[in-house]
Amino acid sequence: MAQKYTTREQDYSKWYNELVGRADLAEHSDVKGCMVIKPYGFAIWENIKDELDKRFKETGHSNAYFPLFIPKSYLSKEASHVEGFAKECAVVTHYRLKNAEDGSGVVVDPTAKLEEELIVRPTSETIIWNSYKNWIQSYRDLPILINQWANVVRWEMRTRLFLRTTEFLWQEGHTAHATRDEAVEEAEKMNQVYADFAEQYMAMPVIQGLKTESERFAGADETYCIEAMMQDGKALQAGTSHFLGQNFAKAFDVQFSDKEGKRDFVWATSWGVSTRLMGALIMTHSDDEGLVLPPKLAPIQVVAVPIYKSQEDLDKISERFNELGAKLKAKGISFKYDDDDNRRPGWKFAEYESKGIPVRLAMGMRDFEGGNIEVARRDEKTKEVVSFDGVDAYIENLLEEIQLNLLNKAKAYREERTHKVDSYDDFKVQLEEKGGFFLAHWDGTAETEEKIKQETKATIRCIPADREEETGTCMVTGKPSAGRVIFAKAY
Amino acid sequence: MAQKYTTREQDYSKWYNELVGRADLAEHSDVKGCMVIKPYGFAIWENIKDELDKRFKETGHSNAYFPLFIPKSYLSKEASHVEGFAKECAVVTHYRLKNAEDGSGVVVDPTAKLEEELIVRPTSETIIWNSYKNWIQSYRDLPILINQWANVVRWEMRTRLFLRTTEFLWQEGHTAHATRDEAVEEAEKMNQVYADFAEQYMAMPVIQGLKTESERFAGADETYCIEAMMQDGKALQAGTSHFLGQNFAKAFDVQFSDKEGKRDFVWATSWGVSTRLMGALIMTHSDDEGLVLPPKLAPIQVVAVPIYKSQEDLDKISERFNELGAKLKAKGISFKYDDDDNRRPGWKFAEYESKGIPVRLAMGMRDFEGGNIEVARRDEKTKEVVSFDGVDAYIENLLEEIQLNLLNKAKAYREERTHKVDSYDDFKVQLEEKGGFFLAHWDGTAETEEKIKQETKATIRCIPADREEETGTCMVTGKPSAGRVIFAKAY
Repeated sequence: MAQKYTTREQDYSKWYNELVGRADLAEHSDVKGCMVIKPYGFAIWENIKDELDKRFKETGHSNAYFPLFIPKSYLSKEASHVEGFAKECAVVTHYRLKNAEDGSGVVVDPTAKLEEELIVRPTSETIIWNSYKNWIQSYRDLPILINQWANVVRWEMRTRLFLRTTEFLWQEGHTAHATRDEAVEEAEKMNQVYADFAEQYMAMPVIQGLKTESERFAGADETYCIEAMMQDGKALQAGTSHFLGQNFAKAFDVQFSDKEGKRDFVWATSWGVSTRLMGALIMTHSDDEGLVLPPKLAPIQVVAVPIYKSQEDLDKISERFNELGAKLKAKGISFKYDDDDNRRPGWKFAEYESKGIPVRLAMGMRDFEGGNIEVARRDEKTKEVVSFDGVDAYIENLLEEIQLNLLNKAKAYREERTHKVDSYDDFKVQLEEKGGFFLAHWDGTAETEEKIKQETKATIRCIPADREEETGTCMVTGKPSAGRVIFAKAY
Repeated sequence: MAQKYTTREQDYSKWYNELVGRADLAEHSDVKGCMVIKPYGFAIWENIKDELDKRFKETGHSNAYFPLFIPKSYLSKEASHVEGFAKECAVVTHYRLKNAEDGSGVVVDPTAKLEEELIVRPTSETIIWNSYKNWIQSYRDLPILINQWANVVRWEMRTRLFLRTTEFLWQEGHTAHATRDEAVEEAEKMNQVYADFAEQYMAMPVIQGLKTESERFAGADETYCIEAMMQDGKALQAGTSHFLGQNFAKAFDVQFSDKEGKRDFVWATSWGVSTRLMGALIMTHSDDEGLVLPPKLAPIQVVAVPIYKSQEDLDKISERFNELGAKLKAKGISFKYDDDDNRRPGWKFAEYESKGIPVRLAMGMRDFEGGNIEVARRDEKTKEVVSFDGVDAYIENLLEEIQLNLLNKAKAYREERTHKVDSYDDFKVQLEEKGGFFLAHWDGTAETEEKIKQETKATIRCIPADREEETGTCMVTGKPSAGRVIFAKAY
């Protein structure tokens, strides 16, 4: 009676939506555009958060917390920032409700109108730099290396769970530096932290690079990014790190005295990743049977299912699994033993497959008597019967192998779908036929970039940091190009 | 040139405000009523959060995340809840800004008015029970044991850092159960978790009990609480756990089928603690020299300061401290070595005293040559010179001793200021003269409670769970009383 789910082939977008539901990760709430992140989905996010938080602290950052609300006028202080962020946002205009006179409930109290409206933060540069103004007088107060884990709101008309929601969870780093070089170094370092995390934990290969001017963060002088390829060949921007120059320091008049007493504006960076990473994680590895999780982020790494007819059999099998569970936990491997008598093994197998548990164990009486155990791996959907003796070490290795296999598969997938093109006609045909990433020459102008976007919906994902030295001519205009950039359709 | 700070004796409230600033814990933001939690303050909050989160998970709870916004009509669904929460709150009425026609910045776009206003959550019962409605069909779906770490907003006219702010951080547990007994047990269990945490980690003794009807959470059938005494004798409600009966299930029509197929409404609890705990922590232990922290919550447990004249001396002392630091870290003790040459030892001593670092070490050349080290404890402001050999074990014990000493001091302080009174006149005189907690008989009516509150500003903090069996007569009305309750002025 298994429900029939949509496959990636049939409808990639529908497959994604169904998967988020069947793996019990998140759902839409009744509040337009806002999601509920369910316990299993949140447990994965907590693993992402914990590891990133550790890496931020190891690189010298501290957490802090700034207000949810931003006075409307702050958004206008940095000219390009207001263009990017002051449009679609939640505006608080009143601070009190009162009982409706007709007894129908509560209504807004018109006498409780705010003098200046408050905006629910879409990002916190303005409110944070307004604080930094009071914290920074001299070079001795620098650098400031702060991160914040928070919820932010950007009013979205068309939303998709994790990928684009009105409210989302994220971290935003905001740093202040005495020199330009130090700020650039920080922005690059944090982009590298993101890239390492994506590859080592999410098993998701990413391309590091710079955004073009038109794709930059509103208020940044330079935006570094990591870009990943999803299984439909589209790009997903998984993290960004911005060198903000002195733009916010100037907007909020944040100056410092250097060792010689000379005054200058402070240099800034900001960098962030969000619950969007959950969408990236899902779309990088999952298959038609459900979620596939890299072991390092799986809330449950190993699940064990007993197959039995009598209580006596169950007792024997349970003893083995409990023994094994203790050994795995001692190795730091999370283990769940599912001896729920209300569900049949087949139901459990399907359930844990949907939820992407990396390793599933099963034992029946024949296994028990032969001193064996069945070990199934989620990534390859293979299983084998191995000796129970030493299976803890076997599983430990297997988890490492799965982690690596997922990264290698995703890398191979991306390589296959990354194409060099030299003519615009070729580009257009291949983009529609094959999709993926296209390395092409571009003349460096926003006009050409915009023309390509209008005609093909592909954008420049980034100017790759490690691109080959190769000058050429723009595929559209034939003008000189300093090197290939990556074009793709994107989330 | 030490700044002169206000003492507790001079002005307790001013002492508190100054202390939050000098220990660099938090500050007011430009957004009325909203605070900025600075890195040092946030590091303490992270320690509180991590330990509570561990205890919630050990008792079977999972984290999840629900929307920041609540449709206005949801608040009206539970009759008493709306009375308590729908009044002073932030109301989102619009979702877009646009450029002002006069070029002066941005203004609210009147065409982007929400059909139904959204309230920034003051607490999440309504939005969560609206979700639970879809999650619960049968007894098999129960219990649901979910916690959320989130920001909430309650519009406050008079705010104080940590104690009462418009936006604050908290956790809110929301559980759903098949039986009344199970829900009551859950509410009691979580109040116990709070009490254990307060005593074992915050070194803050608390009285567990029940709130009277008029002090209950809006929508609860019973509110359990933990109450602590601050150093000015006032009470601070440090955590609450509510048995919500079937009130929210009925408001949102959440029913389940039991094993026999019979339909019934679901039973509920909710429970929470907030950044208010930071205020409680500060006011329980700190003194006129600054913050005092229990070692288990201190971001830095041990700080070491070298006292030297030459680089050669510094090198020798540094070697010892680095050796010791490695040993302490191996024991899980956080250690900071402050060899900053820009600050003198006296400045550092005062700084770490302000910040409440539990143990401060110092070493000069005389100590070095004698194989000694100076160990100062923050709680008692004493210091002694001990042998460097084995000082790591000495410090480990000392941290435990400080943790216990702070709890015992706070307990003794509370005992001294807890009085039994039998006449209302005595009560009024002693409340003004001595302050503290008053165990008195009360007739159980809201009228008498209100009269006492109006006349003395004291409220019933709780009906203590472990009160002596002692009937009597109400100190105000002379009517029969089932037992003594605790009166106090409160934060």
